Formats: sequence, C-alpha cells, structure tokens
Amino acid sequence: MKKLYAIGTGPGDKELLTLKAVKAMEKSSVIFAPNNNGKNMALDTAKDFITDKKIVLIDFPMGEVKRKDYKEAAEIILKKIPDDGKGAFLTIGDPMIYSTFIYIMEELGKDKIETEVINGIPSFLAAAGSMKIPLTLKGDRFMLCDELDEDTLEKYDSMAILKTLRSKENILNTLEKNNFQYSYIKKVSFNEEKIINNKEEILNDKNYMSLILARKKERK
Amino acid sequence: MKKLYAIGTGPGDKELLTLKAVKAMEKSSVIFAPNNNGKNMALDTAKDFITDKKIVLIDFPMGEVKRKDYKEAAEIILKKIPDDGKGAFLTIGDPMIYSTFIYIMEELGKDKIETEVINGIPSFLAAAGSMKIPLTLKGDRFMLCDELDEDTLEKYDSMAILKTLRSKENILNTLEKNNFQYSYIKKVSFNEEKIINNKEEILNDKNYMSLILARKKERK
Repeated sequence: MKKLYAIGTGPGDKELLTLKAVKAMEKSSVIFAPNNNGKNMALDTAKDFITDKKIVLIDFPMGEVKRKDYKEAAEIILKKIPDDGKGAFLTIGDPMIYSTFIYIMEELGKDKIETEVINGIPSFLAAAGSMKIPLTLKGDRFMLCDELDEDTLEKYDSMAILKTLRSKENILNTLEKNNFQYSYIKKVSFNEEKIINNKEEILNDKNYMSLILARKKERK
Repeated sequence: MKKLYAIGTGPGDKELLTLKAVKAMEKSSVIFAPNNNGKNMALDTAKDFITDKKIVLIDFPMGEVKRKDYKEAAEIILKKIPDDGKGAFLTIGDPMIYSTFIYIMEELGKDKIETEVINGIPSFLAAAGSMKIPLTLKGDRFMLCDELDEDTLEKYDSMAILKTLRSKENILNTLEKNNFQYSYIKKVSFNEEKIINNKEEILNDKNYMSLILARKKERK
C-alpha cells in the first residue's frame, strides 16, 4: 500500500523539525506542498532535508477553496506516490491545526493509502516559548481561535488568536475591555522575529505571519 | 553568564524531540529534571542524548508544591550550572503548558541566568495526530484545560482535557449532554498507546498518562 506522511514543519525555524519529521522525509520519494506562487513556507523550512526528492506543488484556487479542490489534491497525491512507495505532505505548524491537510485527508480514502500524522510545533506555542508567557498554569483554561468571540472571554486565562490581519483593532479593544494583557508576534522563530506590545505599533503592522497571545491580568 | 535551556521533550516518543532540543542537550553539561522516585519521564525520553551528562534530579514534596520549593529548585539550578556554562531542564510535553518549569522560571532571576525555551510537542497534539482528529478546522475554537467547566461548552468546537483521573464520569456525562464526541487516549506516542472510545472502558482505566479529546458532533 502507498503511504503518506502528513508532516508539521513547525513555525519556520528548521531546527524545530522533529527527528521523526526528518526521518519521514528521508523515507519519502515525493514531497507535496500547497503552491503559493511557486513558493511554500513549509518547503523552505524543510529544504535541507529534501534536496534529492521530487517536489510536487499543488495548486489551490485563490479565495474560497471548495471540496472539489481538496478532492483534486488528494487525487494528485494518490497518483504521484508510486505503488508501495511513500510520500510526504508538508504543512506549516501542525497538520491537525487550521491546516489544508485536514481537508485533503478526508478525500484520500483509507483503502487506497495509509496516512500517518507527524506533529509539528504550532506557531502559538513557539510564540509562548519566545515570550516566556505560560499558556497554562495549573487550573488554567487556554483558548485557540482564528476569530475572537467576546462572549466567553471571562472564562479563559490565556488565548492565542491567529489570522489577526482583518480585525486587529477590534480584537485589541475587546482584550483591553476584558482585562487581558496582550503581545503581538510576527515571524516567530525566524531571525526577523519581532514581539510588539505597543498598541499603535501592532495596529500599523501588516504581516500575515503574525498572531496575538493574551493573558488575563490578575492571576488566580 | 550561565544559560538554562528549558526543553520540552514531547509526549514520550524520543523521535518527537526537535533537532533544537537535541542540540541544546549536547551543549549542556548538566541536565535537570524533577525527581519522581528516582525516575522521570522526560529523562527517559532524552536518555540516548545525555549519556555523558551530569544528571541532577530535583526533589519536590508530595502534595502541594509551594513557592519556596520552586525557589529551592531555582537555587539548585543556579548552583549546579558552572559559570558561563550551560544546563538543560527537561520537561514532558512543552515547557509553557502545565509545567513545573513555569514556576521555577519565575524564581530564577534574569540577572543571574539566561533562559531559552525550546518547545516540545504537547500530548494533546500528539493525541490529535494519532487519532487523526482535527483540533481546529477553519473558524473553530479549541479549548485546553485540566478541569472541565460546563458553562461555556457550547462555545467550543473541540477540547482537550488533561488530568482526567479524578472526575472522568462527570466529564464524560457533561460531554455527552453537550453533544460532544470523545476519545480517551493513554500513553500517547508510546508503543503501549491505546485509544478507547467505549465509555465503560474509559471509566475503568486508571492510567495517569491519559487525556480526553472531544469534538462537537455536528460540523458547522
């Protein structure tokens, strides 16, 4: 049977790849990644380990990606991995967190291919490590989202908000109103990593590779 | 200046160590870990990479650990790392998630020692990967806790509940009532890993190294 590794390449620093991810790439003859104008961040992270591999960049339409697009991606993967061969689909962060792979996985068909998920360090975790802000102390609740919901903020002790580009001002105001401290981090784990705490500076930044970490001001 | 790496060793499979974790251990002359009857899981995970290192197991009292205990741990670390030398404190999972290290970090004193956090794969993420259950699809909210709070369950799409030993029956009943599917996993990433979906079986299991992953039944 064919086998596909779904590999989380982490936030961007190649040193944050796991030993298991490196071994899985070595075992694979084909490497897949979503095509982003001929580039892909996961591929950049992994480049030292896939120099002798066949690379297949999979196109997705701009804007809304539909089920048929994931189906087509799954068909490409099934076609390009040789019989009894191995391939790897690379995804930034972790394959189980806001990834394209989750949707492709559902179209792969368990009878045609074996899949194995190899975890990666999610960006919000790397951000917490870099800022030395605990995500969870004993008894804490942590919430991860890509859109903030004001209703339940008093129930969490900490939060990571991804994809903040559209509604940053609203997010920061909501956090302040609910007594959360926040930090903004862009390009976490890269040499260009930058942590910003000043509200105006955060609002002026337009980096797509950014997230907000927030923690309640008083500790229990 | 002295330097301490806080290394997350992940859920237990040594292959889930990052390249960065391995390098940091190589650079360290002393390895610290909490003493658990002369054993420590993080140390077991890392054992192949620290054969030539000095190991210091730090004692913590049974039951409630107080601030003075963390202070003492910090003092041991400061004392045992040679001037301008490097040490590593090993912690299962990730150092920023429900770890002893967070509390020690606060007692270390930034002027005496530099600390660097090296992330590890958290157990709940390894569980999601092993079960191939997405933690977050687009628009989803994920919640991580060590104690379940019924109030806000309708606001999440997925959840990881750690340290379930005490109140498993209550947790499962609450999840069912709120229309969540759940799976219980013990010893994730180990050869003995086991996923249990049957309620009775889950209730009968007494493994401390276990967690519950839950996901709302209907998809948005």
